[in-house]
Amino acid sequence: MYSYSHLFDFISSALQKMGFSEEDSTQCARVFMAAELRGISTHGVIRLADYFKLWEAGRINVTPNIRTVHESPGTAVIDGDGTIGMLPAIKAMNIAIAKAGTAGTGWVAVRNSSNFGIAGYYAMMALEHDMMGFACTNASPLVAPTFSAIPMLGTNPMAVAIPAGNQPPFVADFATTPVTRGKFTIAAKKGEKIASGYAQDAEGNPTDDPTAIEHGGSMLPLGGDREHGSHKGYCLGAIVDILSAVLSGANFGPFVPPMMSYLPLLDQKSGEGWGHFFGAMRVDAFMPTGEFKARMDKWIETMRNARPAKGQEKVLIPGDPERENEERISREGIELMPQVVADMEIIAKKIGIKFAH
Amino acid sequence: MYSYSHLFDFISSALQKMGFSEEDSTQCARVFMAAELRGISTHGVIRLADYFKLWEAGRINVTPNIRTVHESPGTAVIDGDGTIGMLPAIKAMNIAIAKAGTAGTGWVAVRNSSNFGIAGYYAMMALEHDMMGFACTNASPLVAPTFSAIPMLGTNPMAVAIPAGNQPPFVADFATTPVTRGKFTIAAKKGEKIASGYAQDAEGNPTDDPTAIEHGGSMLPLGGDREHGSHKGYCLGAIVDILSAVLSGANFGPFVPPMMSYLPLLDQKSGEGWGHFFGAMRVDAFMPTGEFKARMDKWIETMRNARPAKGQEKVLIPGDPERENEERISREGIELMPQVVADMEIIAKKIGIKFAH
Repeated sequence: MYSYSHLFDFISSALQKMGFSEEDSTQCARVFMAAELRGISTHGVIRLADYFKLWEAGRINVTPNIRTVHESPGTAVIDGDGTIGMLPAIKAMNIAIAKAGTAGTGWVAVRNSSNFGIAGYYAMMALEHDMMGFACTNASPLVAPTFSAIPMLGTNPMAVAIPAGNQPPFVADFATTPVTRGKFTIAAKKGEKIASGYAQDAEGNPTDDPTAIEHGGSMLPLGGDREHGSHKGYCLGAIVDILSAVLSGANFGPFVPPMMSYLPLLDQKSGEGWGHFFGAMRVDAFMPTGEFKARMDKWIETMRNARPAKGQEKVLIPGDPERENEERISREGIELMPQVVADMEIIAKKIGIKFAH
Repeated sequence: MYSYSHLFDFISSALQKMGFSEEDSTQCARVFMAAELRGISTHGVIRLADYFKLWEAGRINVTPNIRTVHESPGTAVIDGDGTIGMLPAIKAMNIAIAKAGTAGTGWVAVRNSSNFGIAGYYAMMALEHDMMGFACTNASPLVAPTFSAIPMLGTNPMAVAIPAGNQPPFVADFATTPVTRGKFTIAAKKGEKIASGYAQDAEGNPTDDPTAIEHGGSMLPLGGDREHGSHKGYCLGAIVDILSAVLSGANFGPFVPPMMSYLPLLDQKSGEGWGHFFGAMRVDAFMPTGEFKARMDKWIETMRNARPAKGQEKVLIPGDPERENEERISREGIELMPQVVADMEIIAKKIGIKFAH
């Protein structure tokens, strides 16, 4: 088990050694560690190795000039200058919050960025301002639109955070696919099949092979197949892609560049880097904050008290599982897989710091 | 087959006979008929009978004072004064468009309304202003959240319309369930089972019985079950409910009143009537309109040209099927089921006009 402060300091030091400023490194480390605490370890410490290798390959700008390239009273477009996704994401969400302060809502599109970690982090930044937060991002193509044989969209996650009063906030944060790709990796390691509706092979036929993607296959959108509403999951992934990338000037759809340094950059571009989209809506632009929070408490209590289905304990509110993880992991510490520890030790050695605790 | 103008005139006349103004009746008739043309006949002429019976029961206000009760530069809340949903919906979307003109985006929540027909109609109102449009609504409870035995949310549809250049616009318009309830009715009539992931029985067990809802069962959210991501469909339905009703002051979740006049009003309220939520985002608040439209054309062409899955003809863009329906139905005329014709003849007789053509 590792402590929060140990891993936080390591990530922050590693980023500084790569050339990021102290403040930028601290901001990024907070996002990595929020993923660990919330139990989304697929987006936590493990990802430092990806950015490190991109940096070694000269594909990450560690001294970015992140700037506003277009704006209106309630909107802006930010250019991330080819840096790590967390930095333009935090800046963009802060601008959305500031604009919501005057216009009622604020919406900011980001181009020329890269993977930003968990979408929920940015949506939740709105909560302390008594605002609702929205965040989404596109990502490298892995998902086949309904009726397509090939991947054209990323898993394109979206997050919505809504403040409550006595109840904890509502925080939905999910990829627009039935499951994350991590499930495939685990099934492959265990020699298990994957469930129906998760993947298709290179011809577009349904498959239960967890290695399908490595053989030209694709993940499927939320819904799985047409009969179960995959066209709606495709719509969601498409909307995220259009808001994040068509509207910002980033690469969209199949043109989104890979985050893995061993994959070649694509020949064709449709913009700059990855794209994100953020929003903040001031609650009292619609009704007095106290009244809204009391109504939100009642909404949450109503759902929580619904009679559970046979064999189930209770109905959950979006954000409940992650908050329970956060309480437990803050108490017990953070567990890292041996492979992640090995990766961190390699990084530590290369940049001349220590990882062991 | 019926002509557009015949049905349009009938609906408009019937609404005027019920006491709506000529302008209000015309506006509503346009929404009913847009559903017919787009091939969404479940939300077309057939629904006039529901409103008519509500009117007979004294549950629809035909001379509403639809008013703004709260606003900021980019937001507003509208009270629909207990009228037919189309009227406050059109007013709200027009306000969202006007606010986007100055603030960059505009967002309007509506309370004290009722069923508004198809969400896509309002989202598409933004297109002619070179804006992206958003519309969603809550509805009477039919859908069980993940792990719930009972229905707590409506099918809560959402629509997103995005303008393009040479290509037709992107128009996504979908319920946050795998299918609409209409599929259940058709299966029941044919004596067929329904697919897995559509419904559960009164205890929350999966079922293939198309009459499950009449026996205390529920529809399931997009995703179907937890393994296939139903918690994400539940998130979507919840977000629609919160934006439409918690934020506007309407009834949310299980408190949404029934649209069927034979169902009693609920004892408990959590607000006024049904709730909706609308948004408009001015494209040139993010980038020059021409540049965006060219990028959107390229997005559409890229997706359309993806290699189709085995056995499929082509990848569709959201809005393609409805536009193809519109071209065909405009040419061939509108077909009504015998039961709908019978309902219209009853209405015609009661209010002293003619339906036959």
